[in-house]
Amino acid sequence: MDAHDELSLRRKRLLETLPSVRAGAFLVTALVNVRYLSGFTGSNGILLLTPSRSLLFTDPRYQSQAPGESDCDVIVAKGNLSKEVASWVKRLRLRSIAFEENRISFAEYQHLKEVAAPARFKPVAAAIEELRMLKSPVEIATIRASVQLNSAALEHALRRFRPSMTELDLAAEIEYRMRRLGADGPAFDTIVASGRRTALPHARPTGHPIQADCLLLVDVGATVAGYASDMTRTFAVGRLNPKLRRMYKAVLESQLAALDAVRPGVSCASIDSAARDVLRRYGLEKFFIHSTGHGLGLEIHERPRLGHKERVKLQSGMVVTIEPGVYQPEIGGVRIEDTVVVTGRGCEILTPTGKELVVL
Amino acid sequence: MDAHDELSLRRKRLLETLPSVRAGAFLVTALVNVRYLSGFTGSNGILLLTPSRSLLFTDPRYQSQAPGESDCDVIVAKGNLSKEVASWVKRLRLRSIAFEENRISFAEYQHLKEVAAPARFKPVAAAIEELRMLKSPVEIATIRASVQLNSAALEHALRRFRPSMTELDLAAEIEYRMRRLGADGPAFDTIVASGRRTALPHARPTGHPIQADCLLLVDVGATVAGYASDMTRTFAVGRLNPKLRRMYKAVLESQLAALDAVRPGVSCASIDSAARDVLRRYGLEKFFIHSTGHGLGLEIHERPRLGHKERVKLQSGMVVTIEPGVYQPEIGGVRIEDTVVVTGRGCEILTPTGKELVVL
Repeated sequence: MDAHDELSLRRKRLLETLPSVRAGAFLVTALVNVRYLSGFTGSNGILLLTPSRSLLFTDPRYQSQAPGESDCDVIVAKGNLSKEVASWVKRLRLRSIAFEENRISFAEYQHLKEVAAPARFKPVAAAIEELRMLKSPVEIATIRASVQLNSAALEHALRRFRPSMTELDLAAEIEYRMRRLGADGPAFDTIVASGRRTALPHARPTGHPIQADCLLLVDVGATVAGYASDMTRTFAVGRLNPKLRRMYKAVLESQLAALDAVRPGVSCASIDSAARDVLRRYGLEKFFIHSTGHGLGLEIHERPRLGHKERVKLQSGMVVTIEPGVYQPEIGGVRIEDTVVVTGRGCEILTPTGKELVVL
Repeated sequence: MDAHDELSLRRKRLLETLPSVRAGAFLVTALVNVRYLSGFTGSNGILLLTPSRSLLFTDPRYQSQAPGESDCDVIVAKGNLSKEVASWVKRLRLRSIAFEENRISFAEYQHLKEVAAPARFKPVAAAIEELRMLKSPVEIATIRASVQLNSAALEHALRRFRPSMTELDLAAEIEYRMRRLGADGPAFDTIVASGRRTALPHARPTGHPIQADCLLLVDVGATVAGYASDMTRTFAVGRLNPKLRRMYKAVLESQLAALDAVRPGVSCASIDSAARDVLRRYGLEKFFIHSTGHGLGLEIHERPRLGHKERVKLQSGMVVTIEPGVYQPEIGGVRIEDTVVVTGRGCEILTPTGKELVVL
């Protein structure tokens, strides 16, 4: 299947959801979903899909790029895209249009409703995000490349690690290696935290030198051909006290238990429980203050969420992170994260990096 | 004035706009505006402001970070932030609440309206963005630091330039230098385009080696302490033909004319005209397919827009880019961009990098 076949298959699947909301067309306003359904990677675009037409609206900056990337009919609007969309809604006599209620601002919705009247708009929560949960073989191959590049970048950067390096220097080195290996760039703000700052799950790297005899947490992801990767490793810089070593052991055991639970048909909530159960036995569950993982793909955080409220069941072809963590204020934190693809019988761990405690 | 005084002054100015929309409170949902008004830099937060209370809602990941960054009362919500906001709306007996109509999704608005009933919500277009147009001395100092770091990063990277380097390698080198100099990271996807690809205003760097005897366009910005910088320079790699040299001359003349027009009281549209008039004399105006510049600060694109429709008049303390360009399909493109601050009498160009055509 070539790239255009895949795009048109995705659009066909989306249009199959239209009868359930009694709409005859789908208006796609989230840029990432425009990309998913049309192939267009520019920074301004709206997609209007009907059973017979696929219209991609963009601005003059993309007049040569858009037709090169997309198999949709490209319409270059000089002013506001919504106005141009509205004029096509009228031209095609569309009466009922599904729209992404979470991916359009209140103001843009109001404006569209007004200029496209008398067409009616039907709110849809996450139809495209649900399609995106299941990755195609091409998508899995791209995520695999992204994950491998990401691991290689971390490995190359760590070869240049030396105590007294600052968190910022290490972050810069990782991102540079990522780029040199061919990434589009980081998929999110690289986290490099050392010492007590490891207890902040989303710490930004600082100019402080990385001290000896403490934890070093690195959470890093690359974007490769549009697809994200995501991994966390926690290292020992020098010697760790027994409390921190026990924390590492608990998190690793928790991560392995969660990985072991991943298979088709199992609920996301039960993966989260598997991770939490191990930490509870160590008396550390109260320090695990986020969910166990999340889907990833064109975005770094996608559905499903591996948390206690998520009812979605895992299916073969989903790609998710498994990343329990423990964060003890004033003491330190450990997180270990892999990216995995759900297979027919369990999962394949895409992340090639080892997980035994490494001493730098 | 210390940082907390500045935050409380910003909130005071925002609350002064409430009577005009007949609201007693302001709900801030755009993360960048939450940061502007509260100091909080996390990835999940909502701000509810009344004349007597400043409440910052976030999740458990930020329970230690938020009180460290913000002078607002921090409320850590375990689940959905909107629900927690709604319960405070009731507790404070708020009846009419201004909200950011462009910065909240249709779905989130619907949800809030429901759970916070009977409170009514009043749409406001860009009250905070309007406040943000005028930068304080501290903000200008931060943008200056960002601009200087950005220029230094480009300069350091160009010292390592050699023909046959790929566009991606050069982009990686620039971003690495940026990081090493202390930036949080790039403010946007770095553009490095060579040869005919310079005719794509938003080209992504490719793995193609940069050829001799052609144009090289670099558009780069850093984020430093949260504030963006933005500059573009176009270089000659080897010898350029007369057509490309004339294009460069035209764009430089256009950029200087626009810079010369910048002063308080002048409309943004007239700056755009000043740039366009020069290109028209060269017969190149039809190839100038974007506006002349934009404000920048916590975001890379802020108000005002220096385009033909923008009625805002420049004021002392605004920070904008001046960046005319010419893009001739199949031939090439040139853009030259500085960041400037509007002063009492004209403007100060913050970008220290020269603009005469440099041959690499």
